[in-house]
Amino acid sequence: MAQARTLQDLFLLTLKDIYHGEKQILKALPKMAKQAGSPELKQAFERHRDETMHQVERLERVFEMMQKPARGQTCEAIEGLIAEGQEVMDETEENAVKDAGMIAAGQAIEHYEIARYGTLCAWAKELGMDDAAHLLHETLEEEKKTDELLNKLSRNINRQAA
Amino acid sequence: MAQARTLQDLFLLTLKDIYHGEKQILKALPKMAKQAGSPELKQAFERHRDETMHQVERLERVFEMMQKPARGQTCEAIEGLIAEGQEVMDETEENAVKDAGMIAAGQAIEHYEIARYGTLCAWAKELGMDDAAHLLHETLEEEKKTDELLNKLSRNINRQAA
Repeated sequence: MAQARTLQDLFLLTLKDIYHGEKQILKALPKMAKQAGSPELKQAFERHRDETMHQVERLERVFEMMQKPARGQTCEAIEGLIAEGQEVMDETEENAVKDAGMIAAGQAIEHYEIARYGTLCAWAKELGMDDAAHLLHETLEEEKKTDELLNKLSRNINRQAA
Repeated sequence: MAQARTLQDLFLLTLKDIYHGEKQILKALPKMAKQAGSPELKQAFERHRDETMHQVERLERVFEMMQKPARGQTCEAIEGLIAEGQEVMDETEENAVKDAGMIAAGQAIEHYEIARYGTLCAWAKELGMDDAAHLLHETLEEEKKTDELLNKLSRNINRQAA
């Protein structure tokens, strides 16, 4: 992370971080969809992949508003979260246990994004960037809904796995 | 991660993961408290350190209930999250911008824990481990309260930082 003197610097760094993160998630979701046993879970991962494409576009619009090039920077947290998801896929058999593990990994990723977009949205408001705050808030709401959907799907899948 | 055939295997692996994570958080919180400019934020990090000690003890009780040794395993997600928090501390000056960045890092960690304890709690219930579910739920509620407190503190601090 480069030196951050102002809240605007910090905002931009966090934006680059989540931009990189979303691109990693975009690559991980099709793998998760492919391995999901439950058709509902497969569909949830596929739908969230499409949603993530729009989220990436929204981030690009925020970069544009700031007149900065859309550029990611390595986000160690998201890489760790995705690595954990990959481990679950590698080390479980193709059954409800794998699905339960993938839902858990997916929810950990969603929660990371909820924290990040919540922060970015609050910072955008403080910086008087209302249009950016609006875009970030849209994504925040989508991430919360995805977490709720995974939570709902987990009930049956956990029962099957137990 | 070792092979996980059953939900109980997955539960134990996730328990080891968060046990390692909590121990890393226990080391990170005093550093964050030391660097906090706002006295309220300093106190919040110090209080959460004490809380985290009890959370580690609760995890040890869950290991005991399962008649397994309390042993952590590297949790890449939490290491990434803590590394990001460390970067914010290194790259900001000691002022409201640093505090705003540390709150954001703290909330990302809390959200990871909320996801993990939520999952562990649901799995413990499915596995008929009601006493473990109760302990994990206590910690889950503490993590949610810490996130809310950080959110509350962020309002003034973000304003000062902007």
